Amino acid sequence: MSYFDAASSLPLHPVARQALLAAVDEGWADPARPHREGRRARMLLDAARETAAEALDCRPDELRFTSSGTQALHTGIGGALTARRRAGRRLVVSAVEHSAVLHAGETHERAGGLLHQVEVDRTGRIDVQEWARALGEDCALACLQSANHEVGTVQPVARVAEVCAEAGVPLLVDAAQSLPWGPVEGPWSLLTGSAHKWGGPPGVGLLAVRKGVRFAPPGPVDERESGAAPGFGNIPAVVAAAASLRAVRAEAEAEGARLRALVDRIRARVPGLVPDTEVVGDPVRRLPHLVTFSCLYVDGEALLHALDAAGFSVSSGSSCTSGTLTPSHVLRAMGVLSEGNVRVSLPPGTQESEVDRFLQVLPGAVAEVRARLGAGAAPAAGAGAGAAEDAGGTTAGAAGPDRDTAADVAATAATPPEGAGEITVDARGTLCPLPVIELAKAVGRVPAGGLVRVLADDEAARLDIPAWCEMTGHAFEGAEGTEYRVRRAGGTG
Amino acid sequence: MSYFDAASSLPLHPVARQALLAAVDEGWADPARPHREGRRARMLLDAARETAAEALDCRPDELRFTSSGTQALHTGIGGALTARRRAGRRLVVSAVEHSAVLHAGETHERAGGLLHQVEVDRTGRIDVQEWARALGEDCALACLQSANHEVGTVQPVARVAEVCAEAGVPLLVDAAQSLPWGPVEGPWSLLTGSAHKWGGPPGVGLLAVRKGVRFAPPGPVDERESGAAPGFGNIPAVVAAAASLRAVRAEAEAEGARLRALVDRIRARVPGLVPDTEVVGDPVRRLPHLVTFSCLYVDGEALLHALDAAGFSVSSGSSCTSGTLTPSHVLRAMGVLSEGNVRVSLPPGTQESEVDRFLQVLPGAVAEVRARLGAGAAPAAGAGAGAAEDAGGTTAGAAGPDRDTAADVAATAATPPEGAGEITVDARGTLCPLPVIELAKAVGRVPAGGLVRVLADDEAARLDIPAWCEMTGHAFEGAEGTEYRVRRAGGTG
Repeated sequence: MSYFDAASSLPLHPVARQALLAAVDEGWADPARPHREGRRARMLLDAARETAAEALDCRPDELRFTSSGTQALHTGIGGALTARRRAGRRLVVSAVEHSAVLHAGETHERAGGLLHQVEVDRTGRIDVQEWARALGEDCALACLQSANHEVGTVQPVARVAEVCAEAGVPLLVDAAQSLPWGPVEGPWSLLTGSAHKWGGPPGVGLLAVRKGVRFAPPGPVDERESGAAPGFGNIPAVVAAAASLRAVRAEAEAEGARLRALVDRIRARVPGLVPDTEVVGDPVRRLPHLVTFSCLYVDGEALLHALDAAGFSVSSGSSCTSGTLTPSHVLRAMGVLSEGNVRVSLPPGTQESEVDRFLQVLPGAVAEVRARLGAGAAPAAGAGAGAAEDAGGTTAGAAGPDRDTAADVAATAATPPEGAGEITVDARGTLCPLPVIELAKAVGRVPAGGLVRVLADDEAARLDIPAWCEMTGHAFEGAEGTEYRVRRAGGTG
Repeated sequence: MSYFDAASSLPLHPVARQALLAAVDEGWADPARPHREGRRARMLLDAARETAAEALDCRPDELRFTSSGTQALHTGIGGALTARRRAGRRLVVSAVEHSAVLHAGETHERAGGLLHQVEVDRTGRIDVQEWARALGEDCALACLQSANHEVGTVQPVARVAEVCAEAGVPLLVDAAQSLPWGPVEGPWSLLTGSAHKWGGPPGVGLLAVRKGVRFAPPGPVDERESGAAPGFGNIPAVVAAAASLRAVRAEAEAEGARLRALVDRIRARVPGLVPDTEVVGDPVRRLPHLVTFSCLYVDGEALLHALDAAGFSVSSGSSCTSGTLTPSHVLRAMGVLSEGNVRVSLPPGTQESEVDRFLQVLPGAVAEVRARLGAGAAPAAGAGAGAAEDAGGTTAGAAGPDRDTAADVAATAATPPEGAGEITVDARGTLCPLPVIELAKAVGRVPAGGLVRVLADDEAARLDIPAWCEMTGHAFEGAEGTEYRVRRAGGTG
């Protein structure tokens, strides 16, 4: 078994386990009490705060412990927005922030505030100039992740922090993914993290608020954690979180370099091993341990199950693997394929042999899912076009045991009649990746320059049909309602 | 060392410790993930929910886990108020609720809502008829604790739940203190609890919301815990909390009876062992393990330190032991003395010998603090009155090494001149218990029927001067600004 979902959660680091055990015996009392059990708990809490603050490169009295990274974000964003209410009501975030940030943004909007999302490029990175333009007189807070949780792309946080400082806008940095690897540089105002992302226990978030930054948490508070995290604190977990952060940081440079090489191997080899695959995210300016790729003609959930059966636990941003019907907002903002999406995030200690076995297993897993869905390799832009037998007609939905696979179509496709017109494919009522599979088959049946109209009502199609065109070289001519227009490459259209 | 502060927090129950250790190894992954680590975490979470729901006497799908009891209260109150916004904006609570409830009430008030506090009697108990009258057309939510955390008085929750059900008002029961001893009876709508109060780990709160109760948590949420507790859950702690609640419940009846007898012993013996002491709270309808008393002429903080040095960890609702300058709102609502307040809450397993040793040590600890403050036994209403040597004058503040103690005054007091007038005591700038000590001395110096005016600006005086009169039998004639008027008993006034 190889667990390759480190970006989601990590098992407890041995140092965290040891610290947790010691601290449940020593740090269970209320640190606000003057009796000896309370004083002992207070000492442990103070020491943990010192340790964690050192790792964040802030002062101990600037650091609050919360009950999760999400709580840290909600409190940090809410607290900064409330305190800066008079400065403005606009919250600037990147379009690829963690959902906890976007949820806080929606809450802000419901309360009459404005949410301004700064777009990213195809690697998921924001542009500093564009960010600077987004700041303005009415901007209360800016919020940027240090690195993306789905694709690993690192943001230019230090420069953004400077731009924000110049504009007089506080910057909150969501450092959940990067904190195990090092502190965040630049003059940030608020910073958040989550212990279970580095092998600390669940139930501990970090919220640093620099001295001088205006901050007024909304909702009920009490005297604990400077009014930022009401309720009885979780000292044993906080102690374990701080101790393991220090331990992880001590190994970060060497382990980061080692995992970076393993991820480079995956990035380099996947496109060759699995046809019609797109590796996404910035290849260089990225987290050391994380890589994401998407495979055409694959159902993300089925692929996860196939990999799970083969002994690999990974994650996916495909819509079909989550409870919602929309694909990952990160992939959508990047404009890359969401179908058959796989995120591999290697935990510290991952062996080279595990990665090699993953690369061995992956092509078979993808092929198996594709075969089950009746999809194969699609015709590339340069390949011979398929016969336009159904030109002008409307094909049935994708289901049906005896329908041709895209591979079959590509194989049987020969010299098409020039300018043989259009096909309309009705893929309404089917979910990803079926609309794209039907599109690929249909493209094989029109000549170069021919048009395929796809009718699709799955939300993912809005992202995946243009992404498929980008990957295969065919021309995406736009969408209107549920109709997508794709022109086969090589023609006059 | 005897830890007698169970109502604040308990060390980890052995069952909780064992469950926590197992669950950090098995339940660290994200339960929302479809891979095997995620499925294993999900199974542990589901099993813990079943177990805890059984202890609460609710359905598993009615139970949410939060990050603390305080969070459960904030979310429960906020969620019910938001969902019932159209029904009304009034929140009805008892005046002796936990501060987390009152903080949520203040937040509600800041947002334009109304907070209605139902008064309690001298034992801390609400009256059901008065509660019923407080409910009305515009009442969105009622909130009542099952038992008080400072004095142990049990509320008539089952009857209140029926009254609320009849009025169509949802009732939230804060069961933090009583949950280890049994489920809450009656048709409550929402219920909260906190694991570290029964020997579960910190970082786990319970929030049950009955099916059919309208509920819409304010603030940002996500898909976790039915939208009631955003952020990555703390499954190891949740597992430990549920396992230990079941274990504690299995011992509750026998252990409750045993501790009840020990508390009865303290209640019976303290007034005889320590002069000028008031045991507060309901003597019968109370938590089994908790007793609170207040000692005249004692600084609560100094008494806690003296007891700590003697090996006993207790708590106090005196203002001088907390960061704030106001005494416990619970004692204030009950109208009982707050100075020299001591809360003894026995953890399960407390030995008879520990309680006996506490009763041995307590009189000396109180006497030591009284001696240090220059206070002794005060003249009771029936005792001979003191000489009115300073009558009509104004004494200096309480500080000063060579001033007479109240005991000295009482001892030297002989037949006073009849109707020898008034004394004004200026105790401004001194903190509790000094104004009361000065009052006691001054009463010894006026004849029966004579008047003492005390000038005091400590917030606690507002509670403690009337309470002192109630205890000693002298007549409290009212306060105006910082002036308190006390008439010595036995006269014509």
